[in-house]
Amino acid sequence: MNLRIAVVGSGAIGLYYGGKLAAGGRDVHFLLRSSLPAIRDRGLQIRGENEDLRLKINCYPSTQEIGVCDLVLIAVKTISNNELRDLIPPLLHQDTLLLTLQNGLGNEEFLAKNFGERRVLGGLCFICLNRILPDVVERYDYGHIHIGEYCREPEQRTHNIAETFNQCGLKCRLVENLGRERWRKLVWNIPFNGLSIFGGGIDTSAILKDENLHRSALALMEEVMQAASKCGFPLESSTPEELIRRTEMMGAYKPSTLVDFEKGKPLEIEAIWGEPLRRGLAAGADLPRLQLLYSLLQFVDRACQEKATDRQ
Amino acid sequence: MNLRIAVVGSGAIGLYYGGKLAAGGRDVHFLLRSSLPAIRDRGLQIRGENEDLRLKINCYPSTQEIGVCDLVLIAVKTISNNELRDLIPPLLHQDTLLLTLQNGLGNEEFLAKNFGERRVLGGLCFICLNRILPDVVERYDYGHIHIGEYCREPEQRTHNIAETFNQCGLKCRLVENLGRERWRKLVWNIPFNGLSIFGGGIDTSAILKDENLHRSALALMEEVMQAASKCGFPLESSTPEELIRRTEMMGAYKPSTLVDFEKGKPLEIEAIWGEPLRRGLAAGADLPRLQLLYSLLQFVDRACQEKATDRQ
Repeated sequence: MNLRIAVVGSGAIGLYYGGKLAAGGRDVHFLLRSSLPAIRDRGLQIRGENEDLRLKINCYPSTQEIGVCDLVLIAVKTISNNELRDLIPPLLHQDTLLLTLQNGLGNEEFLAKNFGERRVLGGLCFICLNRILPDVVERYDYGHIHIGEYCREPEQRTHNIAETFNQCGLKCRLVENLGRERWRKLVWNIPFNGLSIFGGGIDTSAILKDENLHRSALALMEEVMQAASKCGFPLESSTPEELIRRTEMMGAYKPSTLVDFEKGKPLEIEAIWGEPLRRGLAAGADLPRLQLLYSLLQFVDRACQEKATDRQ
Repeated sequence: MNLRIAVVGSGAIGLYYGGKLAAGGRDVHFLLRSSLPAIRDRGLQIRGENEDLRLKINCYPSTQEIGVCDLVLIAVKTISNNELRDLIPPLLHQDTLLLTLQNGLGNEEFLAKNFGERRVLGGLCFICLNRILPDVVERYDYGHIHIGEYCREPEQRTHNIAETFNQCGLKCRLVENLGRERWRKLVWNIPFNGLSIFGGGIDTSAILKDENLHRSALALMEEVMQAASKCGFPLESSTPEELIRRTEMMGAYKPSTLVDFEKGKPLEIEAIWGEPLRRGLAAGADLPRLQLLYSLLQFVDRACQEKATDRQ
């Protein structure tokens, strides 16, 4: 069975995963906006270690023109979730699956509330990408993806999707408990994405080299693990020290938040920091560092966006 | 008895307090560096509500040329304390008093260790000043000063100094317990000076208008009060809510750290955040927000100074 697949949100993540599926011969249809002319003209290029491909893809200016699909990859920035209320309906038949590849917490819940819980899957992307031109995506690191179902163990349909991903050269693994894996990813994202935008921008290696920031990263990790545990997702198997060791091996890595910050884009404050903070506090966790980090990030983000608006 | 007074550190604080004493007819001698030619030519100008004075002052390029004094006002930035080891000795006779008007914790201890505990007094300056030109200091707010003795109650000599200050139009009060008053001032300085440099610079009114930063300021105040208490200086009489109300009445006030930050100057990280953090932790306080704030501030400060060095 060849799934008809739509990609909504054609930043680096949507173009990379959708593009690899298309290159593997799957029936993929992209909603494009600013990059539509460039990609229609020259095709999409994906570059990285051991891969360099340019391919023509099916692109559309609206989801009405795409029409109903079996699977929708959702990769818009979480700050644009509200737009999904209009973008998704034209793509839906009764069994259409929605696979969100977005960051942080709250995205599966948003889709479940608006389009029904049964449709909702989530993917965690362990990858570093940058769209360096409208039609060119560069991959720097990793590339595997873990997928699961919202509030259920993976059913056959999700096994099929994972197989499709793997057949197209995307290393895909199933996760039994998607909620727990979202929290596990946050144990890394909350400190490293969060600390990365201060002092004009700090990569992971600079954070770890600075004694006080290193200590702060560790302490934030402990807070996130405590919040996860209070929310019903104990993460015994990962220790902060082990995550730090793996991060040291990544070298001077730029978290996606730093990439957004350097481009002057709005940051995914609520999905990565706000929602975990609110859920952790509601479950009785003590999160003083996360609270301060969140308050600084939301202020810095707003100040940057106001400056960007002033310049326009 | 007319005290012979030296002023070491001729930024806004040294020039203002020394200048007011000189204008009141006291025998004051200023160590000046970059501002020496301008002040020798045109005199010193002090402007503010109800005051506008220009006066000739005694200025010198070295403390050797000043010679021994009875009282030394110390107003160098705390990051330059090491220079005091050479600057102070030429000013000392057996009973010379050293009155530090510097910010934060550790300054009295530094002076006591290097020049003897008996000489050391401390002053808390509640004032907002800006040296807008080498020879012009503007005062925006308040102007009172609280002075006390290091690890002792005020002796007659300190009563005399307070009287001198008051005779020269400086509102001066004695404090019984200088250590406790240093901590009390930090309850305000740690949150408001600390939060002020993020997002390109935030005055006190913007901090209080932002719901999350407001909450963070309150929580930081609670942490500092806890640290003070663990260090033996309980501050029952001030509540964070009351301090917030007084801060609201100050309007859009720029803490000295924001003034330094905007001028690209190094920040007084160790005196205002580092030393209180270390003392609080050593006394068993739990200071997660202060720890994170300190780690971000020291990183931001270093990044700014490196950028400034690159530009030179």
